Amino acid sequence: MTESFSIIARKGRARRGVLRTKHGEVQTPAFMPVGTIGAVKGVDSSDLKSANAEIILCNTYHLILRPGAEMISRRGGLHNFIGWDRPILTDSGGFQVMSLSSFRKLEEKGVTFTSHLDGNKIFLSPEEALHAQNLFACDIQMVLDVCPKSDATEDEIRHSINLSHKWAERSVDFEKPSGILRFGIVQGGFDEKTRIESAKFITQLPFDGFAIGGLSVGEPEDVMFKMLEVVLPLLPEDKPRYLMGVGKPEQIQRAVELGIDMFDCVEPTRIARHGTLWSSNGKIRIARKEYEEDDTPVDSSCSCLLCRTYSKAYLRHIYRIGEPLYIRLASLHNLTYMLNMMEKLKASY
Amino acid sequence: MTESFSIIARKGRARRGVLRTKHGEVQTPAFMPVGTIGAVKGVDSSDLKSANAEIILCNTYHLILRPGAEMISRRGGLHNFIGWDRPILTDSGGFQVMSLSSFRKLEEKGVTFTSHLDGNKIFLSPEEALHAQNLFACDIQMVLDVCPKSDATEDEIRHSINLSHKWAERSVDFEKPSGILRFGIVQGGFDEKTRIESAKFITQLPFDGFAIGGLSVGEPEDVMFKMLEVVLPLLPEDKPRYLMGVGKPEQIQRAVELGIDMFDCVEPTRIARHGTLWSSNGKIRIARKEYEEDDTPVDSSCSCLLCRTYSKAYLRHIYRIGEPLYIRLASLHNLTYMLNMMEKLKASY
Repeated sequence: MTESFSIIARKGRARRGVLRTKHGEVQTPAFMPVGTIGAVKGVDSSDLKSANAEIILCNTYHLILRPGAEMISRRGGLHNFIGWDRPILTDSGGFQVMSLSSFRKLEEKGVTFTSHLDGNKIFLSPEEALHAQNLFACDIQMVLDVCPKSDATEDEIRHSINLSHKWAERSVDFEKPSGILRFGIVQGGFDEKTRIESAKFITQLPFDGFAIGGLSVGEPEDVMFKMLEVVLPLLPEDKPRYLMGVGKPEQIQRAVELGIDMFDCVEPTRIARHGTLWSSNGKIRIARKEYEEDDTPVDSSCSCLLCRTYSKAYLRHIYRIGEPLYIRLASLHNLTYMLNMMEKLKASY
Repeated sequence: MTESFSIIARKGRARRGVLRTKHGEVQTPAFMPVGTIGAVKGVDSSDLKSANAEIILCNTYHLILRPGAEMISRRGGLHNFIGWDRPILTDSGGFQVMSLSSFRKLEEKGVTFTSHLDGNKIFLSPEEALHAQNLFACDIQMVLDVCPKSDATEDEIRHSINLSHKWAERSVDFEKPSGILRFGIVQGGFDEKTRIESAKFITQLPFDGFAIGGLSVGEPEDVMFKMLEVVLPLLPEDKPRYLMGVGKPEQIQRAVELGIDMFDCVEPTRIARHGTLWSSNGKIRIARKEYEEDDTPVDSSCSCLLCRTYSKAYLRHIYRIGEPLYIRLASLHNLTYMLNMMEKLKASY
């Protein structure tokens, strides 16, 4: 049987690899656009392919609230439902339970929380999170973990890793359909000792890959990279490494140098909607007066729909008048910029 | 010199024709998607081409407020600015001055009104409206007219046609760049006599085409068709006839049978945004529970991006969660439906 992950080149600690899934291969290091509730904000599947997205991420928390895991299963799985035939990674919902829901009761059996939409009480356990992901029938599953807040006390972090570790063990035991990959998640807050403890515990379990969670949640960037320096040497060389929720282009470049293989972040589409575009000459805040009569594209080295067809002056015009077309063109551009950056990173290894 | 309009087939009173413009030919009867402020809501130029749009309409009133006619001229004209290389018709702003602006002072020299955006006072005259359209450098220009409200009194209608007729004469005298077509507009409210008077007056002026304005503004449909029956026999056979702001698919079919050649309406994109899609089996209100688990496309005989790729269940999901992708897919579908209907109409003559 072929291994699901192979490293094909190295440079320092950085790795270039191939991740094999039921829906095809992903070249790593890879950036996964975030399709929260089954759609990457503002763009469609063919836009994503035009930007060379090889894999996207969808959010279990959002999907179980709307339209529901059973409903997606009846559609033949998430790929079929959302019209995307390349790999999908689904997160576990742990992060959103902590950040979005108003009421939470954390117990060993699982977490009871209040939906941010309608106030309904919902129960999520490690088994329920994986059951939902089995119903989605996607390529890569994440286990349910407890993601502490960035201002968590020592006791809260201790409690969160104890629970996360017990849940990880139960997740290993839960039915996994053939061909599906399942990743464990290292937590531990911003303390070196608990991070090391969590990395050691999680990596002795037979997961197909390992994620680092609980970072980029408001801590200084130095602290985040310090945690990476501590955790990365403890992760097995032969498994994919995924840094969750990160991030900005320069953070991704630096994390790739440290040996991370996978990333996801809403940054490209979120800042696009708020008027900021990346370019090879730096950030462009399109509302600025200086672009009012600028007939050049946002980035003349970019081949996206926006840069091929429209000027900064036009983009600024449709941004200011609130045309829905703005969201698509700007989101597609920033995704293309990020994915082009990943291509260049891969080509350099 | 080739005539700008040729009729190539007839069936009863219906005509099939070709309109020749600086930016290419338009097969008639033609439907013009409305790109109000330089963008057809929710879609881009390549979407419009995929739906076989041969010509679009842009609104002079909106464009002079934002981004301004001089600014568009400095971009090399509206085509260049908005990234659309097929024909564009620009309206005169008369309708929006009446319906959108809060303060209006109507005088023989022109109309002073308050911008609906910032309260600035703006002056528009027949000459100013054409000057702006000359700066846009589009293919078909409309003269400034006075569009009475649907509840206008006999005196108000009398005043509006008197002024519209004087303005039409001045419009004929205003500089027209080579290759540009300029259309006159028949007004006259809902009274047969004033409609006839206006049609007779306007058609004795040397315009390149004739529009019927002031209809579909709230009057019963029967009244609108009665006015068409009265006006159409008075319009010259050899010039294109444009029914402004109409309309719904069944109204367009009926008006084509009466001899109308051109249409524009925001209906396809507006009802799409509010959850209604046309299909060969009737209207679909996508929010309805009956589509929750419907895996079939909105219209299996449609080849648009939506119908090729996504199910009703998915469209309903992204409509309910407010994803921007919904607007694009639904708008593109309804435009495709309307333009396909025009293709079928043309093929039947």
